[in-house]
Amino acid sequence: MSKQSRVVHVICLALVWTGAAMAPYANAQTSNAVHAWRAQHEADIVRQFADLLSLPNVASDKANIQRNADRIVELLAARGIEARQLPEAGAPPIVYGELKTPGATRTIGIYAHYDGQPVDTSQWASPPWRVRLLDAPLDQGGKEVPLSALPARIPAEARIYARSASDDKAPIQAIVSALDALKAAGARPSVNLKFFFEGEEEAGSPHLPEAFKQYRDLLAADAWLLCDGPVHQSRRWQIHFGARGITDVEVTLYGPARVLHSGHYGNWAPNPGAQMANLLASLRDRNGKILIPGYSDQVRPLTASEQGAIKAMPDVDAQLKQELALGWTEDEGEPLGMAITHPALNIRGIQVGNVGNKSQNAISTEARASIDFRLVPDQTPERVRQTFEAFLTKQGYWITHKEPTLDERRQHARVVRLEWGPGYPAARTSMDLPVAKAVVASMQAISKDQIVQAPLLGGSVPMYLWTDVLKVPVIGLPIANHDNNQHGANENLRIQNLWDGIEIFAAIFTGVDGNWPK
Amino acid sequence: MSKQSRVVHVICLALVWTGAAMAPYANAQTSNAVHAWRAQHEADIVRQFADLLSLPNVASDKANIQRNADRIVELLAARGIEARQLPEAGAPPIVYGELKTPGATRTIGIYAHYDGQPVDTSQWASPPWRVRLLDAPLDQGGKEVPLSALPARIPAEARIYARSASDDKAPIQAIVSALDALKAAGARPSVNLKFFFEGEEEAGSPHLPEAFKQYRDLLAADAWLLCDGPVHQSRRWQIHFGARGITDVEVTLYGPARVLHSGHYGNWAPNPGAQMANLLASLRDRNGKILIPGYSDQVRPLTASEQGAIKAMPDVDAQLKQELALGWTEDEGEPLGMAITHPALNIRGIQVGNVGNKSQNAISTEARASIDFRLVPDQTPERVRQTFEAFLTKQGYWITHKEPTLDERRQHARVVRLEWGPGYPAARTSMDLPVAKAVVASMQAISKDQIVQAPLLGGSVPMYLWTDVLKVPVIGLPIANHDNNQHGANENLRIQNLWDGIEIFAAIFTGVDGNWPK
Repeated sequence: MSKQSRVVHVICLALVWTGAAMAPYANAQTSNAVHAWRAQHEADIVRQFADLLSLPNVASDKANIQRNADRIVELLAARGIEARQLPEAGAPPIVYGELKTPGATRTIGIYAHYDGQPVDTSQWASPPWRVRLLDAPLDQGGKEVPLSALPARIPAEARIYARSASDDKAPIQAIVSALDALKAAGARPSVNLKFFFEGEEEAGSPHLPEAFKQYRDLLAADAWLLCDGPVHQSRRWQIHFGARGITDVEVTLYGPARVLHSGHYGNWAPNPGAQMANLLASLRDRNGKILIPGYSDQVRPLTASEQGAIKAMPDVDAQLKQELALGWTEDEGEPLGMAITHPALNIRGIQVGNVGNKSQNAISTEARASIDFRLVPDQTPERVRQTFEAFLTKQGYWITHKEPTLDERRQHARVVRLEWGPGYPAARTSMDLPVAKAVVASMQAISKDQIVQAPLLGGSVPMYLWTDVLKVPVIGLPIANHDNNQHGANENLRIQNLWDGIEIFAAIFTGVDGNWPK
Repeated sequence: MSKQSRVVHVICLALVWTGAAMAPYANAQTSNAVHAWRAQHEADIVRQFADLLSLPNVASDKANIQRNADRIVELLAARGIEARQLPEAGAPPIVYGELKTPGATRTIGIYAHYDGQPVDTSQWASPPWRVRLLDAPLDQGGKEVPLSALPARIPAEARIYARSASDDKAPIQAIVSALDALKAAGARPSVNLKFFFEGEEEAGSPHLPEAFKQYRDLLAADAWLLCDGPVHQSRRWQIHFGARGITDVEVTLYGPARVLHSGHYGNWAPNPGAQMANLLASLRDRNGKILIPGYSDQVRPLTASEQGAIKAMPDVDAQLKQELALGWTEDEGEPLGMAITHPALNIRGIQVGNVGNKSQNAISTEARASIDFRLVPDQTPERVRQTFEAFLTKQGYWITHKEPTLDERRQHARVVRLEWGPGYPAARTSMDLPVAKAVVASMQAISKDQIVQAPLLGGSVPMYLWTDVLKVPVIGLPIANHDNNQHGANENLRIQNLWDGIEIFAAIFTGVDGNWPK
């Protein structure tokens, strides 16, 4: 988009989308200056981001997670932010920062996380923390562009490949670069800003509730932006008003105490792999419908306005089915936007014996499966556990939460070991929050497309901590592309999404106060 | 057992078990001499066996499998056997040998295989081809006895740990040592002997049918002994009159073309792990009953005498359930001896995503499962494939036998890739074969317990090739202990079973002609 055309539609859309009651954000001059600064510094921004991404960041890797925290404090401090680490026993440090604006009356907090999902290196095309820029997506034959020889302008469809390139270091880099751009433009935020970057979100944020209680006063704000997850699959910018909750369980079933020959003992000795198939199949029918009695009792229906917002979302099902090579979808073919407002039960993994060249004519000693549950309001992890365990008990399983002894295995026909993760509930708040209107207006001022407003994010972020513990409004503001391989191998960020993120943060920082509903 | 008490019961049992019409085998003097020779050479025998076991022997490992064949030819040649390798294009060589006895009128062939199951090294307590002697089973705290410092007498319950210690190099070592013992005793076989040692049994013997046709004349004999598998779980010696057949299939199901975040796409994008659970659960109910329509149509009922033989087998179910820490058994609790006369469908492995610390909140791109089918007379691999595929088709699966294209995945809701192994049918022959009576009588002459006669071995060996291709009687003669971790990690041979094997072969080689029914 040329600078000239940007100016034109910024003016038009400001009239159309922000409404008569809201002053259009700061001014087009600042947004143009931010845009121009970004265009002039693309290579620098990418190199700076690559530096951050090169630090391994699995939450359980204490030494490296500390290096990430230290680096982010440096990045914030270099932008004049009062930054420090908030200690939390047993947890990676929280990186906290404040940027005060003289005369500002409102405070906006911004959450992101700097840890990433564990990696299965064997599945990656290149090591997860060797950052690579490809000039197109990997699966479209993207070629590596050496970071030492970046061109001045980087193609919008280029991608940065590394763990957490999108989830969730992308917002951190976008914020830092937005502040650089604003400084260069001689502009400053219209509100006070607080930053809260967590280091164990992908481990289920086990210490976050405690931290929120401990630092409640520090975290006081008019509203928080929770920056995680991807934008809409149509590539339109998006905000969301809630997120599914999550809990997870590791399931172990037991076969014979030693591996047995499948000929000499097959169809006599119980096969734990077959048992696992039966157990998992009992949880969901072949169309994905969850069969656990009582599992969905707590589900709160969508309001009419939430249903309307979902209907207004761009229809991406056909595009996604093409892109993902899918011949069908679960949930009775409900559109994606609606499906993710329902509970999910996802098989993360199954491991029994071996397959392919390594398969052996043998009966395994155990079978393992890993499940994550996506909760919607008002489901609770406690109730999910309860209904799940009651269902297995009803099927004749004897449940234990630790490794069963051989005697326990002898005494009970069907023994199942369940190891539950911590988990947290979903949250879904009103679509009429003042901060939502202010953020949408600020973003809309620099976007030619209508911002997508989703009642619920399919992914899980602990938004309930803001609504239920801090008692502060929170809305979700993602910047990553949807096709980012988040949580999988070859995670990546589309370059245009990084550019958009920088401009979105600059627009919100400068525009949110002026766009706040009177 | 002391030498004196052996003599006594050999005499008694010869009267009881061999029947009036059969001359008791050669003489007790030879059997005592064999026993004494073995007792005097225990350390030497173990070291010689360890040398053979130290050669890696997975059929697909061409260089090492050749080293095995070369070594076995040397071992046979050193005993005066005319030994050579029979080439078979694309297959590991067959080791073939002949030992002629002047004046003998009968010829007995002996089959074993020198290749072993693939290994999952991570599951082994020590590397599979680093041979270790433990003074007791590993799971009972057995301590390693260095091969360089073996005592003169080795405890009967000591175990040799290595791939193929039991399956199926044990008979090869027992034969070689039996010939050494007979030579030392000044005795010689009463029949001509032929040896046929295969190198790809664990890969499903894909070239064996062709080899049998090609070498039909060479393999002419009055009967063959097929030496594979374990003895009875009661530790009694055993012969068997048939074996289950086998075929196998690798099953792949497909999810999205790239790994997806389980929150943003969970319960919309099909989860291949959940689909696999549904597919596998459709094949067997939770008690192990096979649900594939038509699967058991070809099953031939047991005769009254076969049923009688099974009833006469020692009851080992309670002992095994204790040993294996099982709280129940499949096949409606049928005793093991009866259960293995029924078809089996064994899940060898399932692999989807990751579990435990490596699990990711993600939807996998594919799910794989590996199945082996154990066939009973008169099931055929062709019919198994046909009923299996028809059943999946009926469930709405689109079947392909190669990697589906993305377009094929888009066009069909449920795509399954099936990769079938070669497979072969079961065989079950008459329990009244002359060779069976001669072998039982020869063994009975040196055993205090009644020999177990099983209509069918649960494991698979291609006995049909003898009955259907060579048209020669065949009976199964195993020597390994049942608790040998065959096909799994930490495969082992109980030392007493090696000693028994040596004495059994010596007894049969010298006694079978005299015990042949007139």
